[in-house]
Amino acid sequence: MSIQRIGVGPRMSKAVVHGNTIYVAGQVADTTAGQSVTDQTREIVGMIDAILAEAGSDKTKILFATIYLTDISTFGEMNAIWDTWVVQGHTPARATLEAKLVAPQYKVEIAVTAAK
Amino acid sequence: MSIQRIGVGPRMSKAVVHGNTIYVAGQVADTTAGQSVTDQTREIVGMIDAILAEAGSDKTKILFATIYLTDISTFGEMNAIWDTWVVQGHTPARATLEAKLVAPQYKVEIAVTAAK
Amino acid sequence: MSIQRIGVGPRMSKAVVHGNTIYVAGQVADTTAGQSVTDQTREIVGMIDAILAEAGSDKTKILFATIYLTDISTFGEMNAIWDTWVVQGHTPARATLEAKLVAPQYKVEIAVTAAK
Repeated sequence: MSIQRIGVGPRMSKAVVHGNTIYVAGQVADTTAGQSVTDQTREIVGMIDAILAEAGSDKTKILFATIYLTDISTFGEMNAIWDTWVVQGHTPARATLEAKLVAPQYKVEIAVTAAK
Repeated sequence: MSIQRIGVGPRMSKAVVHGNTIYVAGQVADTTAGQSVTDQTREIVGMIDAILAEAGSDKTKILFATIYLTDISTFGEMNAIWDTWVVQGHTPARATLEAKLVAPQYKVEIAVTAAK
Repeated sequence: MSIQRIGVGPRMSKAVVHGNTIYVAGQVADTTAGQSVTDQTREIVGMIDAILAEAGSDKTKILFATIYLTDISTFGEMNAIWDTWVVQGHTPARATLEAKLVAPQYKVEIAVTAAK
């Protein structure tokens, strides 16, 4: 099966497509870093939309999402954005946990696996 | 490749089957929430058995498991159930870590990827 | 699709190959346990190289890596080894988080999914 890399950097790629499966790197906020979980989650799901589009897919084909929150008490705040973003009838499997992330300005990180 | 969703909810699905690969959402205790790691682990592996059966698979085909414990000192207690649950000769790859979960009554969460 | 298990133990396997996808268990240091993040990361990526070779693959085909650090302030130290290990043009998608691991002598754990 073919391997196609998207957004290839010296340390990691934004996504790697293997046959019909897309592995998207954990996305963290860029312009909203340091802002609210609402703002960061909204930016992150937009980033995922863009990466999936570049890989020839979209959010109706997400298979699994891992969501990392630096403060699990923001679970509801993250879900308020998540719940309006996911497409009814096409919701992915998911795991959510609290974890410290690579820099304090990041409050949310989301990694997804999707079908092409 | 086809995408089949199992236990589709408004926020997430219990599992998503993509071709021959099954992504099972992180499972947490239901009736044993708040009880011991032994009890919760036993209930969770039963939940995974049921989901895999619904997807047309079983525990001999688990490829990878991620196990989250809210207190890593319960590693042995979780493994006591795990070790009797897995099928010898068919043990999955695995990663176990400590992480705070979405509610304090959950002490264990297990997400698996399996073959169909 | 075929399932092939590598390093099958009573609790887990070192890796499971499903068709063209290889799921490598979270690797922790062996001889360098208790030593620096530099030492442990170097040993771990060597372990991954060996497991991928046994599965008929190599580091140019890694699709996704999850990196667990017990102290996220060692992110730079881990990356110093990582950056020289990955093959330019073939970098995987990745997520890194802080998490307590199964024993205090482990400071790093890396799990990868790779193509065959």
